[in-house]
Amino acid sequence: MITNLQQLYHDQLRDLHSAETQLISALPEMISNASDPDLREAFTKHLEETHEHKLRLETICADLGIDPEGEDCDAMRGLIREARKHAGATSPGDVRDAALIACANRVEHYEIAAYGVAKAFADALGYDEAFRLLGDTLQEEGDADKVLTRIATGGLFSRGVNQEAIH
Amino acid sequence: MITNLQQLYHDQLRDLHSAETQLISALPEMISNASDPDLREAFTKHLEETHEHKLRLETICADLGIDPEGEDCDAMRGLIREARKHAGATSPGDVRDAALIACANRVEHYEIAAYGVAKAFADALGYDEAFRLLGDTLQEEGDADKVLTRIATGGLFSRGVNQEAIH
Repeated sequence: MITNLQQLYHDQLRDLHSAETQLISALPEMISNASDPDLREAFTKHLEETHEHKLRLETICADLGIDPEGEDCDAMRGLIREARKHAGATSPGDVRDAALIACANRVEHYEIAAYGVAKAFADALGYDEAFRLLGDTLQEEGDADKVLTRIATGGLFSRGVNQEAIH
Repeated sequence: MITNLQQLYHDQLRDLHSAETQLISALPEMISNASDPDLREAFTKHLEETHEHKLRLETICADLGIDPEGEDCDAMRGLIREARKHAGATSPGDVRDAALIACANRVEHYEIAAYGVAKAFADALGYDEAFRLLGDTLQEEGDADKVLTRIATGGLFSRGVNQEAIH
């Protein structure tokens, strides 16, 4: 039974570690399913970042003397199942790319919420270094989400994947 | 097989309809598990909003002449399973409240991502009224997320649930 914030913080770190581990397994399939070169590049870059995010969690857990393993993140499992289902149900090209981005935005927002919570817990508990590391990851998750949205919606001088997927 | 953005948009609307329906079933349990009066009030207000969000989706689907039923949102199922697991694993009071907010932030961010995607699809497809309705919901999901975070982290002159959960 979890009876204080410290224990809940450990639980959140383990949940995130499971989420990142699952995402590292899932991203190569998302890369190979993507057609747009910018989308493939964004997923590839995010896979590298995700390895780094997992390492940061391991550093934080090592400093606390706790095992980062032992949780199974149900929500990330559902998000990845959804991504796989949508990729399989769409025709390859722009439509599948739009579907992959729709799923990846959800994954990023899951992580934005989860790192926001973990960072607030680190703050309340006075873990300055963990607060900084979790904040770095939070920033990168937010940036990744924005890049994906830009690929979907396009810019002032370029059409996005969504426009291309209309016909 | 989904071959264009229009079909993908319908799919997203049905996914959101399933997510909102699941959330309407789950929120009463989250309300009864919460102790902090502000948190109970925030969840109760959000349950009312969620009914409205579901109705908006039904209006949008009726205008398109499509059935809003038929999808099962795997990710929301995982998020709710996670909320139930965390509520059951924490002692009642501030710690359980902090755990419930951690889960609810994730739920809100799932919806922020999903409504952001649906709104971008409505925009690309030229559905002005749906774009407005989806934007209204997106705004309310974002506001609900901020209220929850404030209850967790407190303000300049008040301690939040996280601080109370330390000891």
